[in-house]
Amino acid sequence: MDVTALAQSVTHGDRRALARAITLVESAREDHRTQARALVAEGAKAGRQALRIGLSGTPGVGKSTFIEAFGCLLTAQGLRVAVLAVDPSSARSGGSILGDKTRMERLSREPLAFIRPSPSQTHLGGVARRTREAVALCEAAGFDVVLIETVGVGQSETMVAEMCDLFLLLLAPAGGDELQGVKRGIMEMADLILVNKADGDLKPAALRTQADYAGALRLLRRRPQDPDGFPKALTVSALELQGLQAAWAEMQVLADWRRAQGHWASRRADQARHWFEEEVRHGLLASLNRDPVKGLMQRLGAEVGQGGRTPDDAAAELLTLLGR
Amino acid sequence: MDVTALAQSVTHGDRRALARAITLVESAREDHRTQARALVAEGAKAGRQALRIGLSGTPGVGKSTFIEAFGCLLTAQGLRVAVLAVDPSSARSGGSILGDKTRMERLSREPLAFIRPSPSQTHLGGVARRTREAVALCEAAGFDVVLIETVGVGQSETMVAEMCDLFLLLLAPAGGDELQGVKRGIMEMADLILVNKADGDLKPAALRTQADYAGALRLLRRRPQDPDGFPKALTVSALELQGLQAAWAEMQVLADWRRAQGHWASRRADQARHWFEEEVRHGLLASLNRDPVKGLMQRLGAEVGQGGRTPDDAAAELLTLLGR
Repeated sequence: MDVTALAQSVTHGDRRALARAITLVESAREDHRTQARALVAEGAKAGRQALRIGLSGTPGVGKSTFIEAFGCLLTAQGLRVAVLAVDPSSARSGGSILGDKTRMERLSREPLAFIRPSPSQTHLGGVARRTREAVALCEAAGFDVVLIETVGVGQSETMVAEMCDLFLLLLAPAGGDELQGVKRGIMEMADLILVNKADGDLKPAALRTQADYAGALRLLRRRPQDPDGFPKALTVSALELQGLQAAWAEMQVLADWRRAQGHWASRRADQARHWFEEEVRHGLLASLNRDPVKGLMQRLGAEVGQGGRTPDDAAAELLTLLGR
Repeated sequence: MDVTALAQSVTHGDRRALARAITLVESAREDHRTQARALVAEGAKAGRQALRIGLSGTPGVGKSTFIEAFGCLLTAQGLRVAVLAVDPSSARSGGSILGDKTRMERLSREPLAFIRPSPSQTHLGGVARRTREAVALCEAAGFDVVLIETVGVGQSETMVAEMCDLFLLLLAPAGGDELQGVKRGIMEMADLILVNKADGDLKPAALRTQADYAGALRLLRRRPQDPDGFPKALTVSALELQGLQAAWAEMQVLADWRRAQGHWASRRADQARHWFEEEVRHGLLASLNRDPVKGLMQRLGAEVGQGGRTPDDAAAELLTLLGR
């Protein structure tokens, strides 16, 4: 495959080339990995940055409806929007969050939008790399906003937050006593909490929930990367298209402030270093599953299992053989 | 230090030598690690096996009182008992579960008992190795039973279960609705659930809790390592010394059955292999924190942070340099 040509097509905004490029970064094949790395490095030369927005929320809060409405609001303003999904559970459930684009019918027909469903992946390390590289390719392709959707299960939130400029938490209206249902760690990652379904019968409950979370957010320690008043809790109705423009305005205020204060750049640098180190750790551990090390580990493991030597003694021998 | 002489003193039952040996395995110093490994390997030559019992329970269920009473019951039967504690949180809290032996005053005066408090350690990997090696040294010293106590926080339970022959879960009497408070994963690890404080006013609640858990255990899939009727839920009163002998009898039934069926030996073999692999992974990752690799990582990390290259590209270079 001509990686340079593919990278050029991607940076020229060719959708099919972008889709092909993402398929390449999703591949686990060794030769594909080499090409994918070259492709991402080539794309990075364009020097483009999108606003990367992470979006989390448990099933049922209306994530698809929100993304559809919010994405269409952005494209209506002439912005190019890419939507990616991270679903570490999809390997189990057999499906994926954005399994079929029919759930975002309007947005998927928008010429300025690009929607990529989550592939089935078994382990989070692979999902992280694939998503991170797909984000980088969308940036190279010139998208203004990249939305990264994930389910509210903890580990994947942390991962998505590590590749985003802004992190949104989408909630459904609920009684005040359910506040604790959101893990404190996830709440602390959120830059904006959006209480969805602020329409019809649920509107009073949505307003109450918003007030509860606004109160809870005030109790959190002020973060250096936030201007006064952030993080915020707002209500939106993805169904009735209410509050979306206000939410987008807040995101822009936050992004502009962080850019001006240098937090944006330093966060991106921290994230890049983090992923570099993760990738090294991942690659190092993966080397244990390849021969000749794999065979050696099995042989030593069998000796250890038979009681011929202690686990630590055998580990020390293997590490010495590996030059560690 | 003369490791062979120290190992001999340990296997001859010298308590002070055992205490000194455990202090050695707790050390993080590189030269101490080499000696510790040799010491454990030397001790293993004695070919002794204790019954390793893991004990978990959240604070307040009466773990110390139970261990004191149960330990004394065993020593009264002429059995030699070692008690070790695993407390991954002790680095934070500054204390340790068995911080002072005064909490087990009677047991600590028993000539057949050996109690070792948990050291302050910052990361679970280190705690696991230290505990595992301390267990091995207690076995080499000829103890019949090694009790390994931990707090009910999840990760440390899994770790302790990976180094035990039997796993006990200690609970306090509670309403039936609190059953879900125990994580399913921990319940699935338990061989025996002991509802403590079955005395005085709490006795009816303890019996109810025991019945609830007995019911819940029946819903779990039968495990190949269990004879009919296991895992079981029993009531005990560590305060009034009730039910302890019955609990010990059940432990022996279980241990004897597993020995006879070969599950004991195969589990020990699996555990040894598991710790060998963990130790290799741990050592491999630790090598990243040593020069020259550490310096190289920092240099490449800085390049990545400045946007000069992609995280994956830099990681690939480092891994190539490491020969991976």
